[in-house]
Amino acid sequence: MDSNDKLAKMRHSLAHLLAAAVLELHPDALNTIGPAIENGFYYDFDFVSPISDKDLKEIEKKMKKIYNGWKGFEHKEVSPSESRALFTDNPYKLELIDEIVAKKEPITLYTAGKFTDLCRGGHVDNMQDVNIDAFKLSHIAGAYWRGDEKNKMLTRIYGLAFETREELENYEKQQIEAEKRDHRKLGRELKIFVFDEDTGPGLPLWLPNGAIIIEELEKLAKETEFEAGYQRVRTPHIAKESMYIKSGHLPYYQESMFPPMEYEGGKYYLKAMNCPHHHKIFAAMHPSYKDLPLRLAEYGTVYRQEKSGELFGIMRTRSMQMNDAHIYCSKDQFAEEFRQVNEMYLKYFKIFGIEKYQMRFSTHDPARLGEKYVDEPLLWIETEKMVRDVLVESKIPYVEIANEAAFYGPKIDVEVWSAIGREFTLATNQVDFSVPKRFDLNYVNAKGEKETPLCIHRAPLGTHERFIGFLIEHYAGAFPFWLSPVQIKILSIGETHQEYAGEVFQQLKSAGIRAELDDSNESLGKKIREGKVEKVPYMAVIGDKEVGSQTVTLESRDKGNAETIKIAKLIEKFQKENSGRL
Amino acid sequence: MDSNDKLAKMRHSLAHLLAAAVLELHPDALNTIGPAIENGFYYDFDFVSPISDKDLKEIEKKMKKIYNGWKGFEHKEVSPSESRALFTDNPYKLELIDEIVAKKEPITLYTAGKFTDLCRGGHVDNMQDVNIDAFKLSHIAGAYWRGDEKNKMLTRIYGLAFETREELENYEKQQIEAEKRDHRKLGRELKIFVFDEDTGPGLPLWLPNGAIIIEELEKLAKETEFEAGYQRVRTPHIAKESMYIKSGHLPYYQESMFPPMEYEGGKYYLKAMNCPHHHKIFAAMHPSYKDLPLRLAEYGTVYRQEKSGELFGIMRTRSMQMNDAHIYCSKDQFAEEFRQVNEMYLKYFKIFGIEKYQMRFSTHDPARLGEKYVDEPLLWIETEKMVRDVLVESKIPYVEIANEAAFYGPKIDVEVWSAIGREFTLATNQVDFSVPKRFDLNYVNAKGEKETPLCIHRAPLGTHERFIGFLIEHYAGAFPFWLSPVQIKILSIGETHQEYAGEVFQQLKSAGIRAELDDSNESLGKKIREGKVEKVPYMAVIGDKEVGSQTVTLESRDKGNAETIKIAKLIEKFQKENSGRL
Repeated sequence: MDSNDKLAKMRHSLAHLLAAAVLELHPDALNTIGPAIENGFYYDFDFVSPISDKDLKEIEKKMKKIYNGWKGFEHKEVSPSESRALFTDNPYKLELIDEIVAKKEPITLYTAGKFTDLCRGGHVDNMQDVNIDAFKLSHIAGAYWRGDEKNKMLTRIYGLAFETREELENYEKQQIEAEKRDHRKLGRELKIFVFDEDTGPGLPLWLPNGAIIIEELEKLAKETEFEAGYQRVRTPHIAKESMYIKSGHLPYYQESMFPPMEYEGGKYYLKAMNCPHHHKIFAAMHPSYKDLPLRLAEYGTVYRQEKSGELFGIMRTRSMQMNDAHIYCSKDQFAEEFRQVNEMYLKYFKIFGIEKYQMRFSTHDPARLGEKYVDEPLLWIETEKMVRDVLVESKIPYVEIANEAAFYGPKIDVEVWSAIGREFTLATNQVDFSVPKRFDLNYVNAKGEKETPLCIHRAPLGTHERFIGFLIEHYAGAFPFWLSPVQIKILSIGETHQEYAGEVFQQLKSAGIRAELDDSNESLGKKIREGKVEKVPYMAVIGDKEVGSQTVTLESRDKGNAETIKIAKLIEKFQKENSGRL
Repeated sequence: MDSNDKLAKMRHSLAHLLAAAVLELHPDALNTIGPAIENGFYYDFDFVSPISDKDLKEIEKKMKKIYNGWKGFEHKEVSPSESRALFTDNPYKLELIDEIVAKKEPITLYTAGKFTDLCRGGHVDNMQDVNIDAFKLSHIAGAYWRGDEKNKMLTRIYGLAFETREELENYEKQQIEAEKRDHRKLGRELKIFVFDEDTGPGLPLWLPNGAIIIEELEKLAKETEFEAGYQRVRTPHIAKESMYIKSGHLPYYQESMFPPMEYEGGKYYLKAMNCPHHHKIFAAMHPSYKDLPLRLAEYGTVYRQEKSGELFGIMRTRSMQMNDAHIYCSKDQFAEEFRQVNEMYLKYFKIFGIEKYQMRFSTHDPARLGEKYVDEPLLWIETEKMVRDVLVESKIPYVEIANEAAFYGPKIDVEVWSAIGREFTLATNQVDFSVPKRFDLNYVNAKGEKETPLCIHRAPLGTHERFIGFLIEHYAGAFPFWLSPVQIKILSIGETHQEYAGEVFQQLKSAGIRAELDDSNESLGKKIREGKVEKVPYMAVIGDKEVGSQTVTLESRDKGNAETIKIAKLIEKFQKENSGRL
């Protein structure tokens, strides 16, 4: 039994314990369902009189008390009428029973101590396997019965649970740190982005500070992709209905697409992906085998429907500018191309100080060819083997997950962990051996025959929205020098230092450094405090001494020290940090 | 009488002469209307049996013959019945007469020689004022009666006419040159852009060569704007209906906007302009007078409806990526900001070798304040004076046109002439003292009070689509080094030169030069011919001599000479040309 499975059983057992405690304290409450989730569990109740977070301590106490009386979970299969009799006052359980009956599944009850619940199972064998010191009720929230807003709003009690107390405490510390690093809070404070009612939810407006980060990321991507032999393209944000019928987005992806614009008797759609447009460019280039691999790159903006309730700062948005590219290659070229894509990932991880990462490699299920997966048995085996070999060879940590590939080929989800250990799925790479055929894409091979290329969809830097959201948390808003919107603030102490401060500012700006001048009459202390709030990597203080020696006193955010330095040296240092992306 | 007016009279007189000649040759044809137009005139006829371009010589000959018998135009006002009697067999003229009667205007006939036409006038006094050697019938085309596709298709005969034979010949030469430089033809040949049926008309797909030109233009704009103190922003391509009601685009600009997408019970529109989004960012920045002038720049893509029939290559499209920026400033700062915008234009003109340019300065009409123009009499006078003073002071050629300003402020259209003397309107600058109020934009002035800023809309490089369309004609596709998609082709002569050619190629690429390697087994002659068709600025030939001396023989497209040069020197030369934008 793997560790995840064991944890899930502990967590689900705690959910039962929670329900038992709640029903003892609130006999008129109705319990509904209580699954294990990431980091813990929850249970949804219909309370007669509402409870609040303040009540959680008491429930926790009660849980611990009941815990001592529980041993294992007794399992019993019952008839529909028997089960209905048991839950006669609980319409939620009765609804669940009806469903189980309709699906012709067995109805099972689980009992621990005096508490019996309608349940599919998945508990610890012995309650002592649950570390009662490694759990905590964290908060309550409203939740519609079965997630449907037409139903009644229930009260969901969330719990955290781990194997050890230490893990629980670490998780809580991480949460506190994550709150401090919350990209929505820092995004506002550091003036990176805003949302606006007239623009619409999920459509960020990037303020100048955000646009600088975007520009620097694009510069990095463009340089990296130029070196790697990519060619850039530009495509419109809309296309006619026929494009998306050809690509299969209509009707299979329609739910995620914005509704059409009716125009000149036809329908136009905002693009939800860049691939169809890129396929069209591939076709227009009439490539021969000599032009392959053909790598078409674009930082393209796509639009997707996300329910209002699912929007989350810039991590989950409706407009997304994606570090997109499509690599068209022959089967022979595939492994090397995929290896190079992986190398690009590793290069980026190094630049951004991402130390923990993993690729989730999703493969097909041969039993479902022609149904869930395009019916190309050999291509599936070949490409999956190539992907696997490259992953092993390049020593990238990966897990393989069967039967989760895309319809048209194996899929690789790239997961990274931020500096405080939170996981983010940044990007998806996909191998595609179906869509090129739908678009009738081909190249002339060495024998003069038409051949269909393979296509790799890749986006190592994901979308600006999600990646910058990740970076804000990762760096806690203290961006490295090359990414910092303001790289240095020049602070004059008194009026007599303003002129020289202005000269220093101009010299730095002319050298392409993003400098800001604060020659106001505020105190130096206040100016430094402001610079710290803005998380500026360097501040240059200018007083009598500096004017006299034509230097600045440079304070570093990260090193915490101060040094006196000549302007030419400063520019040299900064240009080195910029070009080295430090 | 100015020269334009004189030319128009000559051209309109020639239209009469054309109708007279056609009716002599084709007595069963019906003549309709025949105005003067740019470069000449036309006349629309309803022919019983169709004519072709081949018939034009004969008509021209007849015109010259009749010309000798004409003196002046006799003018006569007639009654409706009199005029109807004259055109009893011509339903087109009868329709025109009905309209004139309905409008209660006088019905006038003009007679020269034996030919009488229903006409409003505008002829030369004496037919000898028309230079009969400076005109030519150019072509025929179909044209719906009154431009309405529900009406009958007539035959339009076009004529060219100038004051002198030399002007006619120059114009014809320019036309031949313009055809050779046609941006649609060169755009296809040089693989700059394509259109695609599934994407939709007017929505260009930029191929890698086009994307390189775009990237270089954006780099230029970003560097120039960084130096000039602009801040970049990024905004989505859509917004809610309320945004455009606030901006006034709905309903006043609705015809030019794509239809809405109905989503979550509201309407979303593709943006037709970037200003509303930028205004929102200005508001979110809560600026004080210390932050002004605030210059927000974005190469933003906008979408506009253009009728299918009006689309023209990339010169007239439905998607447009615009070199946009909005400068928010106080009244005191306005003149200086406007001066700097003009300087930026001049800087660009120099880079692109644009020698002839002019600003059309459109002003308001005080009589129409509060109706056609926002009711701010003082602001109109003040800003127009400031604009005029700056134009005079900076010695930019300009013409002032009364009563053509935008609703919200004076407007400046920037006209440039390509290398072959054709005129293009590239960009529009606008002063805006109305919209900032509609968006409730303000800054805190030095006294701590809220004040509404002025806004300058400016886009010196226009849209990528129109500007690159212009550049293709301007350079005849032979882009300067810094803009060339392929900057140099490395051509190996024989097999033994391939290895060294590959090394040279790699060195150039690593130095950021857009090099292309042709080490195929084709003959050198063929390789050079291909490079010439592609209009590559440099070709480097590599044979025994070059391998031996570790050099290349460099052939220049523009200088037409060849020189032997070391690789390090070559890289140095190229980097200089790149950074100098040569």
